[in-house]
Amino acid sequence: MLRSQTKLMDLGWRQLPRLHRSMTKASNLTVVEIDDKTGIATLTLNRPPVNSFNLELLQELHESIKQIECNKSRGLILTSSNDKVFSSGLDLNELHKPNQERLVAFWSTLQDLWLSLYQSSVPTAAAINGHAIAVGCVLAAACEYRVMLPGFSIGIHATKFGYVVPPFIVMSYLSVLPRRIAERALLQGKLFTTEEALQVNLIDEVAESKSEALCKCAEFIGSFEKTQPEARALTKRQFRAPDVQLLINDPEGQLRESLEYINTPLFQQGLEEYLAKLKSKNRK
Amino acid sequence: MLRSQTKLMDLGWRQLPRLHRSMTKASNLTVVEIDDKTGIATLTLNRPPVNSFNLELLQELHESIKQIECNKSRGLILTSSNDKVFSSGLDLNELHKPNQERLVAFWSTLQDLWLSLYQSSVPTAAAINGHAIAVGCVLAAACEYRVMLPGFSIGIHATKFGYVVPPFIVMSYLSVLPRRIAERALLQGKLFTTEEALQVNLIDEVAESKSEALCKCAEFIGSFEKTQPEARALTKRQFRAPDVQLLINDPEGQLRESLEYINTPLFQQGLEEYLAKLKSKNRK
Amino acid sequence: MLRSQTKLMDLGWRQLPRLHRSMTKASNLTVVEIDDKTGIATLTLNRPPVNSFNLELLQELHESIKQIECNKSRGLILTSSNDKVFSSGLDLNELHKPNQERLVAFWSTLQDLWLSLYQSSVPTAAAINGHAIAVGCVLAAACEYRVMLPGFSIGIHATKFGYVVPPFIVMSYLSVLPRRIAERALLQGKLFTTEEALQVNLIDEVAESKSEALCKCAEFIGSFEKTQPEARALTKRQFRAPDVQLLINDPEGQLRESLEYINTPLFQQGLEEYLAKLKSKNRK
Repeated sequence: MLRSQTKLMDLGWRQLPRLHRSMTKASNLTVVEIDDKTGIATLTLNRPPVNSFNLELLQELHESIKQIECNKSRGLILTSSNDKVFSSGLDLNELHKPNQERLVAFWSTLQDLWLSLYQSSVPTAAAINGHAIAVGCVLAAACEYRVMLPGFSIGIHATKFGYVVPPFIVMSYLSVLPRRIAERALLQGKLFTTEEALQVNLIDEVAESKSEALCKCAEFIGSFEKTQPEARALTKRQFRAPDVQLLINDPEGQLRESLEYINTPLFQQGLEEYLAKLKSKNRK
Repeated sequence: MLRSQTKLMDLGWRQLPRLHRSMTKASNLTVVEIDDKTGIATLTLNRPPVNSFNLELLQELHESIKQIECNKSRGLILTSSNDKVFSSGLDLNELHKPNQERLVAFWSTLQDLWLSLYQSSVPTAAAINGHAIAVGCVLAAACEYRVMLPGFSIGIHATKFGYVVPPFIVMSYLSVLPRRIAERALLQGKLFTTEEALQVNLIDEVAESKSEALCKCAEFIGSFEKTQPEARALTKRQFRAPDVQLLINDPEGQLRESLEYINTPLFQQGLEEYLAKLKSKNRK
Repeated sequence: MLRSQTKLMDLGWRQLPRLHRSMTKASNLTVVEIDDKTGIATLTLNRPPVNSFNLELLQELHESIKQIECNKSRGLILTSSNDKVFSSGLDLNELHKPNQERLVAFWSTLQDLWLSLYQSSVPTAAAINGHAIAVGCVLAAACEYRVMLPGFSIGIHATKFGYVVPPFIVMSYLSVLPRRIAERALLQGKLFTTEEALQVNLIDEVAESKSEALCKCAEFIGSFEKTQPEARALTKRQFRAPDVQLLINDPEGQLRESLEYINTPLFQQGLEEYLAKLKSKNRK
């Protein structure tokens, strides 16, 4: 039902010509649809084959989130066009023997994107219609509500390829999971099944289909109907302020630390081994 | 039983003539009874019709809490003389087109009152024998234990009339609720039923009557019988220290921020609409 | 099975002659065994009658933990040679009318020991095969996983003898328990039964025997098999960094505060009464 009511919107390009241009240029990587009746924007990740985040997808997603805020949508639902994978996480090619200039753009966009989603003034929900791995899980956790389809995996498995997640990624776990569970899952690089994720409240509901997931997300967004939007937005911003302090006060420092770590032999070697393992798995 | 043993005490006016005077002057707004046998003080909110907090009730409650500490009571139980409403929250007349001088007194007393209850050296419990809305919920949450009667509502619904709660009010939710639930409830302006409140641990127990609630509160206070009072008080103060740091280090700054917000057109307009809605509801 | 495979290892004294010497000197107070097959070190508290921590046990335990890290063990399991008591906590003789010089050594070793266990680079688990009281509970809580035998007690009962626990001990509760439960348990000086501890997640599993507990701990350590050890260690260190900040930034200040408190008449008198009560109980 939500689907039949939606249409692909020209997202106000007259007011926002610069944003519109970047949307046009890369319009395949994300799709934004706004429901005329509810005013809810559905933001679909659309980078085949597995929605891995390269620089261009990060940039376009960031622009789309900013645009949805500017256009006074009543809410934002994040989902995927792929019916098996919500997102596989960062495109590891961006991290493996990286071009340094591109790496700076890549990582600073990731930081900005996360901030914009985590602090979005509109209600946010994720309809997780496939595996949500690493940054896929992080972005879902940055939303206020999560509905997931059965039979998939969600989690941050960074320790498995020698990656140490920066504080803002730790924060995204801590905002939804009890400390004890957050720490253990991070250290184990645990991927939760849908059922396990529901049990620890990493997700809020299970839906049997993507359209049911979208409906449940819309219902959650509807739960704010009787609140004043500005007060809601300010309360959210204030509630989450301690979590983003580090990234807002010192984005360059946080960026530098991440880049330094990415460039260490420890990480590059771990990544290489992980990529080799993946390749040999895919060959079988 | 607790009731039959209690008597209205002259709360040491010889030692505390100043406090006593203020008690006498406004003695209708709160009632303090001390159980001779257990040494537990019952502090009853008594401002008809719905225990909304105006300046005078805040002041008297603050004085009563300080007196209970000075008189070495073994514990404090906060309850209401109204059998439908524990407290409806702040008296909105104090916030609507406020006299600025009175507003300063009003809000700074609220801050001081909350601090004195949150850090009280004696064990504290709330017997919530009616609806506990907004600051009514905040004061109950500032106690160490909560027993509630069925069929009532409890919560902070500030976003519904355009109010953004200050950090110390957020803190009162975070001290009892998991983050994820605290954030969502604050953003939705959610009022929990007694049953829902029990499920998320916003309250600790349900009692069928006020006297049963008072008994359960007294039992909780009795659980500290074998502890050393000074060590208990210091441990509580230290445990809660991070939560009150902001308010203790910069009470004027916190006050100023709240007053600025209360005086914004955004808030005043939201409040006006809310008051109009309430009025039209009451007329029906 | 684990037992039959273990043997008492010469812990690399050639490389670490200084450490080895201190091990030899006091080798009765802790025993370290390394499983040849799994690489897991079992560290056994062994100070009869009840593993109370005097200066010598603290020092030896600290050395053993450092050695296990240096020897690249795959994990650390903390347990007790006594089948009734994991540890009764600090040896109160060290606190009662203390020699000041020895007290400085005692308390600073406790701080260092806690830090080394809480931030250990290897996976840590506690096989709690008896009562775990006060610092016994604190050290178990500093591990990443806890398996306990039924019929025993665990908790921090400091308020019962007038002791106010320092922030790092509060932290050890907060790292595993929800705030509301942590505060109440601390204030009440509550000792949890094995079953209660499981319910609030103060422990993770119950085992019927010590060997089953050791197996379950080994299984937990095995759950990190596919992670990169350096990334795991750094992630743990970063995750726990905020908790240890106070103790790392100002160990002298933290030490001074604790010593000042221990020397107060309030504490010394409470301790004396507690010791007298214990004595009269033991006489009966």
